[in-house]
Amino acid sequence: MGGDYAPGEIVSGVMEALQAWPSISALYLVGQEEAIRESLKGRTLPDNLIIVNATEIVGMDEAPAAAIRRKKDSSISRAVELVKKGDADAVFSAGNTGAAVAATTVKLRTLEGVIRPAIATIIPTQYKPFILIDAGATIDCPADLLFQFGVMGSVYSKEILGVPAPRVGLLSIGEEQAKGNEATKKAFQLLENSSLNFIGNVESRDIFAGKTDVVVCDGFVGNIVLKTSESVARVLGRWIKEELTSNPLRMLGAMLCRGGLRTIKERGDPAVYGGAPLLGINGACIIGHGSSSALAVRNAIRVSLEWIKHDINHIIIDELALSKGKKHDGC
Amino acid sequence: MGGDYAPGEIVSGVMEALQAWPSISALYLVGQEEAIRESLKGRTLPDNLIIVNATEIVGMDEAPAAAIRRKKDSSISRAVELVKKGDADAVFSAGNTGAAVAATTVKLRTLEGVIRPAIATIIPTQYKPFILIDAGATIDCPADLLFQFGVMGSVYSKEILGVPAPRVGLLSIGEEQAKGNEATKKAFQLLENSSLNFIGNVESRDIFAGKTDVVVCDGFVGNIVLKTSESVARVLGRWIKEELTSNPLRMLGAMLCRGGLRTIKERGDPAVYGGAPLLGINGACIIGHGSSSALAVRNAIRVSLEWIKHDINHIIIDELALSKGKKHDGC
Repeated sequence: MGGDYAPGEIVSGVMEALQAWPSISALYLVGQEEAIRESLKGRTLPDNLIIVNATEIVGMDEAPAAAIRRKKDSSISRAVELVKKGDADAVFSAGNTGAAVAATTVKLRTLEGVIRPAIATIIPTQYKPFILIDAGATIDCPADLLFQFGVMGSVYSKEILGVPAPRVGLLSIGEEQAKGNEATKKAFQLLENSSLNFIGNVESRDIFAGKTDVVVCDGFVGNIVLKTSESVARVLGRWIKEELTSNPLRMLGAMLCRGGLRTIKERGDPAVYGGAPLLGINGACIIGHGSSSALAVRNAIRVSLEWIKHDINHIIIDELALSKGKKHDGC
Repeated sequence: MGGDYAPGEIVSGVMEALQAWPSISALYLVGQEEAIRESLKGRTLPDNLIIVNATEIVGMDEAPAAAIRRKKDSSISRAVELVKKGDADAVFSAGNTGAAVAATTVKLRTLEGVIRPAIATIIPTQYKPFILIDAGATIDCPADLLFQFGVMGSVYSKEILGVPAPRVGLLSIGEEQAKGNEATKKAFQLLENSSLNFIGNVESRDIFAGKTDVVVCDGFVGNIVLKTSESVARVLGRWIKEELTSNPLRMLGAMLCRGGLRTIKERGDPAVYGGAPLLGINGACIIGHGSSSALAVRNAIRVSLEWIKHDINHIIIDELALSKGKKHDGC
């Protein structure tokens, strides 16, 4: 029920996914049954599509933890409970991010050894995409959390994006070890003494230059980086539109460039990656953008299939245990 | 001597400024005399242009505080000393930002009541520009520092940009008061109980939408916002170039749109604002972008003239004293 285009686009994406991956044994649409059935009108419902009624909705601006406590019959709570019961392997939400984080953390708990979960957002660049972790799940992060985010991001990059030895960078305000705030300076040492392919501090100007596969930061900074990037791109998009329609000659020019301008828009479209995995919880949860389209939903379902297939959670547990051992050896 | 195009562009900008504002009684070019004289070759030197020899240079990647301690004869140290002695009213540097912050803080000290200085960067948007404060002077900021940044930014917006009642927003990850990290949540209360025109938390997607005149954040976050914005704009610029030169038809189209594309580049050019004032020090210091052009240097000199003319420092002292009184009344 969450996000700007629910349930219409969610339902469309789900139908596409069911066609694309027939191995899916059950796909639950959780929310207000009437609205969902309305969106499904005129379609033949496949046997593996199951509607689960949930009467309440957590609004985009509601305080997450309180909403999860109060609204027992919200779509996000009910969906997460399906994972808890073992009926589902993964949950997707395009709604209130904080509510998805709160519901999964409270109901599913974190993985063994994981202190707090983190959102791993895949960001397109001119070269290849990188993972920004944490993009907003955990706000105040001491060094040990940043370190764990590095481990989880590296596992995801390797297993899902197929990067052999992911280059892990710590987002800071200068490349030298001494640059940064108190938390990043300590995290630098933890990451450096780990088995990760740690390349040191990275600045936000480097992350778009294809130098890093995993960019580690706290959820406050990560969320701001993400939204700043989106905003700047949107502002530039509007400027381009304004300028290229300001006189007939430019409009003709813009028409000739149309294909190129469209490609630019597509290259930067987050829908390609579908959604961002919430790593570190005892289950699988994909956080969709509020403006998730059918394509984004379909791709989010693909991501969750890969998550399960690659058994990301067990690899995270193993890597964290290993890194702990290594740290102890090193000290 | 600092920045990517020193001393050539610095010298050119200075010559333009001297022509534009004949009221300048003395303009000191501080650095390696030989290099400066080389840049000035073929020009008639005005009487109010004075060259001050400084043999050392602080590199862009040097640790600031150590460099200032060690290199007594660096151009930034010598330039700041001119302000300390009262020979100059303001100092401009396009070099190592940390070194300029360290030199001014150590040699000039902060203004009465100011805990730590902050860089106020003016950022262009589709509508009107906003001030981002702090853009990287002070990294770890408890709530009282964030509050002071709000006061200083508001004074600057009002006096220099002419905004009657600057809307001050606190950069966070959600509009509600409860959203943010520990420091921003406390700063929210301080700002709300002040005489500032505080509009609450702002998200980075809002700041480019013209809703805020002053955006408050710590120097770590501010620096990352700044560099992220620059990077995204650069990446998009390159994509546009790539796509619009990929075939002859598009190249023709791009040629027709040339004027519009150039305007977009100009609208986003930081050179227009010249440089960012370092507010809160007992003097005036303008921090230039490393890539400062002659235009940026000339505009930075204009900014410092306005700073002095409006007596920004005294207004900051008064406003901070006032806000303190108000806070005590309120509690």
